[in-house]
Amino acid sequence: MTMVFLNKEIRDGDNPDLTEERKTATFDTNKMAEVIYGSEKLARRRREISQAVSLIPELADSKPLPFLSRNEKILESTRKVTALNEHLPRLINMNDEDEAWHIHSEVIGFEGNPLALHHSLFIPPLVIQGSDEQHEKWLGRAKRREIIGCYAQTELGHGSNIRKLETTATYSLSTQEFILHTPTINALKWWPGALGKSSNHAVVVASLIIKEQNYGPHLFMVQIRDEQSHEPLPGIAVGDIGPKMAFNGADNGFLGFNNFRIPRGNLLNRHCNVEVDGTYVRPPHDKMNYAGMIRVRSRMAAEQGTFMAQALTIAVRYSAVRRQGFLENKSQEVKVLDYQTQQHRLFPAIARSYAFIFCGFETIQKYETLQNEMNSGNVSLMADLHALTSGIKSVVTYQTGEGIEQARMACGGHGYSMASYISEIYGCAIGGCTYEGENMVMLLQLARYLVKSVELAMRGKPGDLGPMVAYLAYPDIKVDLVTGPEAYVKMFQHISKRQSIKATEKFHRKMESGVSRDEAWNQCAVELTRASRLHTRLYIIETFIRRVDSIEDLSIKMVLTDLMNLHLNYELLDVASYALEDGFMSSTQMGFIKNQLYSSLEKIRPNAVSLVDSFQFSDLQLRSNLLNFLFQVLGRRDGHVYQNLFEWAKSSPLNQTEVLPSVTQYLKPMMEKAKL
Amino acid sequence: MTMVFLNKEIRDGDNPDLTEERKTATFDTNKMAEVIYGSEKLARRRREISQAVSLIPELADSKPLPFLSRNEKILESTRKVTALNEHLPRLINMNDEDEAWHIHSEVIGFEGNPLALHHSLFIPPLVIQGSDEQHEKWLGRAKRREIIGCYAQTELGHGSNIRKLETTATYSLSTQEFILHTPTINALKWWPGALGKSSNHAVVVASLIIKEQNYGPHLFMVQIRDEQSHEPLPGIAVGDIGPKMAFNGADNGFLGFNNFRIPRGNLLNRHCNVEVDGTYVRPPHDKMNYAGMIRVRSRMAAEQGTFMAQALTIAVRYSAVRRQGFLENKSQEVKVLDYQTQQHRLFPAIARSYAFIFCGFETIQKYETLQNEMNSGNVSLMADLHALTSGIKSVVTYQTGEGIEQARMACGGHGYSMASYISEIYGCAIGGCTYEGENMVMLLQLARYLVKSVELAMRGKPGDLGPMVAYLAYPDIKVDLVTGPEAYVKMFQHISKRQSIKATEKFHRKMESGVSRDEAWNQCAVELTRASRLHTRLYIIETFIRRVDSIEDLSIKMVLTDLMNLHLNYELLDVASYALEDGFMSSTQMGFIKNQLYSSLEKIRPNAVSLVDSFQFSDLQLRSNLLNFLFQVLGRRDGHVYQNLFEWAKSSPLNQTEVLPSVTQYLKPMMEKAKL
Repeated sequence: MTMVFLNKEIRDGDNPDLTEERKTATFDTNKMAEVIYGSEKLARRRREISQAVSLIPELADSKPLPFLSRNEKILESTRKVTALNEHLPRLINMNDEDEAWHIHSEVIGFEGNPLALHHSLFIPPLVIQGSDEQHEKWLGRAKRREIIGCYAQTELGHGSNIRKLETTATYSLSTQEFILHTPTINALKWWPGALGKSSNHAVVVASLIIKEQNYGPHLFMVQIRDEQSHEPLPGIAVGDIGPKMAFNGADNGFLGFNNFRIPRGNLLNRHCNVEVDGTYVRPPHDKMNYAGMIRVRSRMAAEQGTFMAQALTIAVRYSAVRRQGFLENKSQEVKVLDYQTQQHRLFPAIARSYAFIFCGFETIQKYETLQNEMNSGNVSLMADLHALTSGIKSVVTYQTGEGIEQARMACGGHGYSMASYISEIYGCAIGGCTYEGENMVMLLQLARYLVKSVELAMRGKPGDLGPMVAYLAYPDIKVDLVTGPEAYVKMFQHISKRQSIKATEKFHRKMESGVSRDEAWNQCAVELTRASRLHTRLYIIETFIRRVDSIEDLSIKMVLTDLMNLHLNYELLDVASYALEDGFMSSTQMGFIKNQLYSSLEKIRPNAVSLVDSFQFSDLQLRSNLLNFLFQVLGRRDGHVYQNLFEWAKSSPLNQTEVLPSVTQYLKPMMEKAKL
Repeated sequence: MTMVFLNKEIRDGDNPDLTEERKTATFDTNKMAEVIYGSEKLARRRREISQAVSLIPELADSKPLPFLSRNEKILESTRKVTALNEHLPRLINMNDEDEAWHIHSEVIGFEGNPLALHHSLFIPPLVIQGSDEQHEKWLGRAKRREIIGCYAQTELGHGSNIRKLETTATYSLSTQEFILHTPTINALKWWPGALGKSSNHAVVVASLIIKEQNYGPHLFMVQIRDEQSHEPLPGIAVGDIGPKMAFNGADNGFLGFNNFRIPRGNLLNRHCNVEVDGTYVRPPHDKMNYAGMIRVRSRMAAEQGTFMAQALTIAVRYSAVRRQGFLENKSQEVKVLDYQTQQHRLFPAIARSYAFIFCGFETIQKYETLQNEMNSGNVSLMADLHALTSGIKSVVTYQTGEGIEQARMACGGHGYSMASYISEIYGCAIGGCTYEGENMVMLLQLARYLVKSVELAMRGKPGDLGPMVAYLAYPDIKVDLVTGPEAYVKMFQHISKRQSIKATEKFHRKMESGVSRDEAWNQCAVELTRASRLHTRLYIIETFIRRVDSIEDLSIKMVLTDLMNLHLNYELLDVASYALEDGFMSSTQMGFIKNQLYSSLEKIRPNAVSLVDSFQFSDLQLRSNLLNFLFQVLGRRDGHVYQNLFEWAKSSPLNQTEVLPSVTQYLKPMMEKAKL
């Protein structure tokens, strides 16, 4: 009779060091996957899709990605994405965004591909801003992928301040055309994904000029390359912006216009228009697209949590296989996972991965609920949530970067090899600190909302506070025993409130001292970002607690409670100085929290491998796959690390020839000359 | 009449935004360079060498390094290092290590080259462990570079625990040879630099076996490739270990032996020997090479400080050129360097760069002094210093990584482009957390010394404490006013002492509870590493204070005092929870320290560019150089960022053809098919 184990990743022939870990699981990893991905169906579909993909050879990487040049990476990702599109309807439910997301991570990975932006950033503005006529003209072609497009906004010298964009679209009355022009080097479009070499169309953001009056940024549909030859059209300078820290499978591009003419009808004019005679028809309202940003940033929390989870899957599995040094038993070296320092590097990050994913999902759900309720009135809830997501984006991306790097270092030298693939995961994830709103800018955006809220509370209008900032008006309390999640929430609320109030008071004092509002703000900026981080971290622990509360399966609930406790103690310890500062936390409490933290590490230990297994990343998804039958190297499910590291190295480009040109051309002549 | 400015980097035609910054310098940047590099002579020689190098076209990069594949990087670094060796005697004083160091960074950069290990790790063991006869045979050839060598110790499955190395060298009585063998995949030599494709010789560490008895690790000189054909010799498997996070200009390699025979005379036998009949002659003593490790790790502090300084040079200059958003003046966007958040990201890291360089130099000097005094007796001083350097290595590499990444993010999107080169600097610097002793292992090494010292103090033997840990026996004190560096030192001493004592007490309690020594140690490991970090950070601030104290030039002393104050406040704030925990620091003091920190940022602001200019990195040294006349892109001395970013991008490999194979092979067919 075969024993049945709760960890579902056990297979014959695996490295026994990993199997041993899996046998100690106290919960069912398939059930945990349902909690992570939010439903039994999605967890199951993910496994089914991964399984189906693994049977289609052309969807496998033809070589480990780290062996490829940029040219080869782009060729490979293009090959895969076009092949994937052929198979897609048979493999997934085309209307299910989560399934699409999963299969793309599985097949393409995250280094980019030339169609990634076509669906997420080219088609949406066309849908939203384009008129019916324009839909008629371009939307079908775009959806069928007769044309490939991108979205060109950011300029070489201009990032988040969209009003300072310099590209102009000047209306020519005589020809009824817009003349697109790039007046300076700084005004070159710079960074748009898939712009460099792949797209033949772009939605371009440019300042609309009519009769020398500037009407601000507008969107224009622009064909940039010939549909037959794919050569840039006359008057267009377009190219790739060069290698980046990561995403080198994507051709982020530059784009310059030399008095390039487009028809009047290319202004996306569902909401505004320029008439033949140059009359400008204003859009009915001029609101920011809060909704879109909330969605993207909430999604980022889950996505970043997933990046970190991938790095941790690799590091935790490897740590259960790597042996070094001795503890009790002097006959065999111990697994490095047994060292407290290693656990302290990895386990709190596992907790954060779970926390970020839970936080992302709850935020999206909250947003969707709110959107439905919007009709019935309270718009302030949306502002509350929008402010918060700026903070989430910032805190989550930063902590994810930290966690991934710790995971990499926890793998020692082999973590530094591209065979671990962790440095690529890092490069990709850490981009999130910069894109979709630079982190400092984001934190200050949230701070603006917090200050406004503190001011409301100060003016005795706590009733006007959004629900997520209501605690800013709570009276000071004292927490005697740090037991139970509630106590941690209260501590965090207190800390966060105190910091928001302090920063606001400082801001007011500065203004009272005669400094202008902007300058006063700037002089308090660091304190303000501290307030934003605390507010955000409070929310993240609250979502973790709520998620655990909602779970019914006892064995799942128990291990997640351990993980949550680890999280609560780790997070509180990390911000302890705020709590200690005004005597809110005592030295005894601090000692207690530390002990709780260390005992949490011990509690997690037997479930560590199973907690990362529960993310159910296939070896293909973890990348560095080798040939069609060997996949992940360091973090592979079966734990056979060393043999595969050797195979990986042997197949790397440098080993395709015994004697490199560097030897023939330089080293041999040098040695020969020395013998004379 | 030309105005004379103190910043010596001002040139006609520079970006006026940078010139404006340089004009506000309150000190002479050439004089500061003397302080940084320790002497007027070295600072001047560095400039002279950079100038001389800039006139020799073949010493320039032939292409920006980020555009090259690994094969091309190795070819390029080999080209440059062989060319450099030809010019070297005319360019530098061949006996001056600092000059050699500088010219190598200038010409080769830090991505590695195939001769890097030849001089630092192949020749030294040959010198130290080889007999006169062996020197006769190999040393001259090695020095003339008739042969190229490396040092092969680490194995695929074995890192820092050298006693577990599995490669064997079995003495064959019948043939009087050693038979080198790699019994398992895990026993493959793995990581040695220049082993993969370049070296034809290696000093190999293998367990010496005579008549089935294992005598532990010994060094063997092994020829691995044919000197003529450069093919691996029969019985040798050698190759490159594949791409890494950085150092991709180096061919780190693997090496396996299949019963490979070498003559008896190839055991490096100055101190030990195996006689013809297999009799083993033991070395007279078996001591660790403390001296070498102290030197390497002290050097690392300065080197890491320099890496961070390079990243900061790029980020600070760019921040003075990049404009975004508004403060007082609404007619022009402000330099991003004016934002407090940006200053808070960059300036404390500038202070740390200076601190690490000062710390490295003082430690080397201290070590050299000690070595001279060794004859007169006190060896414990050396143990003191050895323990400390383990901590320095660990703290410095970690904080450098943090600082470089913050510098990169401070450059926004363009920091993410390889044109900034910062991600490559990061990749290289962060390797330091792992090589030369993994950071956690290092911290625990120092902790062992701290615990021993606390135990001495507890047993009432403070007189036995080394000078650097004497404070562990100081009575508790109270600091009322946090003014003057002394107060900060006292605070840090108190914190560090308390943590060392707490960790030691915890360790004792664990043992008393019946847990074994090793297990008790492991259960306290995180607390122990905290003690080590505090001890190290105390030492770093002390060296900073001592260096500033020693300076006579008033204008230099003033700005360095500002920088030191920034450092003291930033560091103390960073560890504030320890001080707050037991009521040693009050809430009022904490508020005071924060205010001091923010006013330090303002004080540094006008000197920020000049403080990084003082490192005097040439544009070539900062890399991403473009052609022979365009060097650094984002951090270039002249501040002309945007035009050069455009030139850089245009010359990148993807832009050498308008229509990529990805388009011809996949995208065009896809679009054509969609039209049907």
